[in-house]
Amino acid sequence: MITATALTKLLNIKFPIIQGGMVWVSGAKLAAAVSNAGGLGVIGAGSMNLELLKLHILKAQQLTSKPFAVNIPLIYSGAQDQIELAIKLGIKIFITSAGSPKKFTDYLHSNHAIVGHVTSTPLMAQKCETAGVDFVIVEGHEAGGHNGRDELTTMVLIPQSRKLVSIPLVAAGGIGSGEAILASLALGADGVQMGTRFVMTKESSAHQNFKDKIKMAGPLDTTLCMKETIPVRLLHNHFYEQVRDLETTNLSTSDKQQALIKLLGSGRAKKGMLEGDLKDGELEIGQISGLINDLPTVQQLIDQLEIEFEACRQKFLVS
Amino acid sequence: MITATALTKLLNIKFPIIQGGMVWVSGAKLAAAVSNAGGLGVIGAGSMNLELLKLHILKAQQLTSKPFAVNIPLIYSGAQDQIELAIKLGIKIFITSAGSPKKFTDYLHSNHAIVGHVTSTPLMAQKCETAGVDFVIVEGHEAGGHNGRDELTTMVLIPQSRKLVSIPLVAAGGIGSGEAILASLALGADGVQMGTRFVMTKESSAHQNFKDKIKMAGPLDTTLCMKETIPVRLLHNHFYEQVRDLETTNLSTSDKQQALIKLLGSGRAKKGMLEGDLKDGELEIGQISGLINDLPTVQQLIDQLEIEFEACRQKFLVS
Repeated sequence: MITATALTKLLNIKFPIIQGGMVWVSGAKLAAAVSNAGGLGVIGAGSMNLELLKLHILKAQQLTSKPFAVNIPLIYSGAQDQIELAIKLGIKIFITSAGSPKKFTDYLHSNHAIVGHVTSTPLMAQKCETAGVDFVIVEGHEAGGHNGRDELTTMVLIPQSRKLVSIPLVAAGGIGSGEAILASLALGADGVQMGTRFVMTKESSAHQNFKDKIKMAGPLDTTLCMKETIPVRLLHNHFYEQVRDLETTNLSTSDKQQALIKLLGSGRAKKGMLEGDLKDGELEIGQISGLINDLPTVQQLIDQLEIEFEACRQKFLVS
Repeated sequence: MITATALTKLLNIKFPIIQGGMVWVSGAKLAAAVSNAGGLGVIGAGSMNLELLKLHILKAQQLTSKPFAVNIPLIYSGAQDQIELAIKLGIKIFITSAGSPKKFTDYLHSNHAIVGHVTSTPLMAQKCETAGVDFVIVEGHEAGGHNGRDELTTMVLIPQSRKLVSIPLVAAGGIGSGEAILASLALGADGVQMGTRFVMTKESSAHQNFKDKIKMAGPLDTTLCMKETIPVRLLHNHFYEQVRDLETTNLSTSDKQQALIKLLGSGRAKKGMLEGDLKDGELEIGQISGLINDLPTVQQLIDQLEIEFEACRQKFLVS
């Protein structure tokens, strides 16, 4: 059995497993399935307008009676409206990211919500604790999608953050198996957040084309790029190649930034991940995609993680 | 007690811990101390001419009766002479790196030596096995010194390599504690190689200035740079800043390469790591340096790793 931790107690969940809140792939269906299976499901609000977010929250509440969370990237101007809507609809766990943990934590607490914040350095994790956040998620360089510039990997980020914070610590990036959950707990985490692994479940809204491409992906098929603007780890395709070509031209940094913003345009992530345009879409995924080539249901995945964790644990029982 | 594994059996050592063979910091004194403490000590031949290598091998043989290895970077023209010398002096374990595992493996086997090879991708690990190598070391993005271009982190590199190879697998990069050893074994490794952690022991030849600087280093104080030439993870200092400034200028790739080679010049690593010039020297170190601020003897370190490993193992005994 996967160990109960300070995180499972805080969130009142069975397993210390959080499903990453991701744009376009983690709506009501995925979040509810994860919560029903004993983890913490998360609706990724980053790709939703208010109306869509409302629909997903109401739908998830129909699909599960277990706690689930909403992930709010603070970089978007609509973040406050999203938070107010989610509170009104009864959401009690929020995960904020891409912004200051000081911004909404007090407000959320005054509305009796639990707050987690995502960051990518030990010092920022410490600042989250200082800001009053209830749990902190540290995301390593290997993680998919938007990521920090500092390239700290999960292996070093966990113990370095553990040294600085006493609130529940959640490891993210490169985690896709029961063995990796045990490794994360060994390194000092109280739980894990998995993104890529949950993209590859039947309940995620990722387009089948995208899932098929992840299934075929090898270890070297992702790169953290666009460091000149907002860093993001992408699965290699035609769009990525255009980004890479632009990044290796001898333009000034500001010219590169402008060219990258223009190339990205709007709607690229939706086009790739939700609509399945493998050529021109943006395909956000982590390094662990190179290891994943099955597409279980969420329940099957959680069962498998439990089996792997237990088999791994057994290895250390005999001295 | 740290688990016995296929690696400890192959190398006839007590603990599945290899000390990374590093330029300028791992001579006879460090290698012998590690072997005496139950790990595998390694003389880093990369920074030695034949005469110096001979001195270090002879000295290590006086200091320990346990097995130790020599690390030979194949990128240097003198690699073959170094290998022949080490064989003549009775070395029975070789670790080759920075080149093809096909080059010397058969020759080393015909001289009754055990061969390990260092690489940074799962596919290259598989090629090592195909080349007949006896064990393979996979080094993640977080590792110090020379490193791969592909940025796979230790967390994903271990399981992805484990899937492809059946020979003993050694994890490197970001490992500096007993907890990290347990995590590496959980992820599928048969042992670990630690570089940065052994730089920070009394027996390493790193200059005291360099050790003092590592002691003060924070999590964000290293960067993998010089990807245009030979990628290397450096501790930030004046020399690193010159490299970074050069890398962010809008020169063509080939102009950048030439400028980087000229800036590096020769003797930079010796100047920094052995002679303690913290301004103009090259200081190679891993991301885990941000967590290390003590300077134990090798024996004290190994004792500490055992205690940490055992305490971590105990956490998983209660279900």
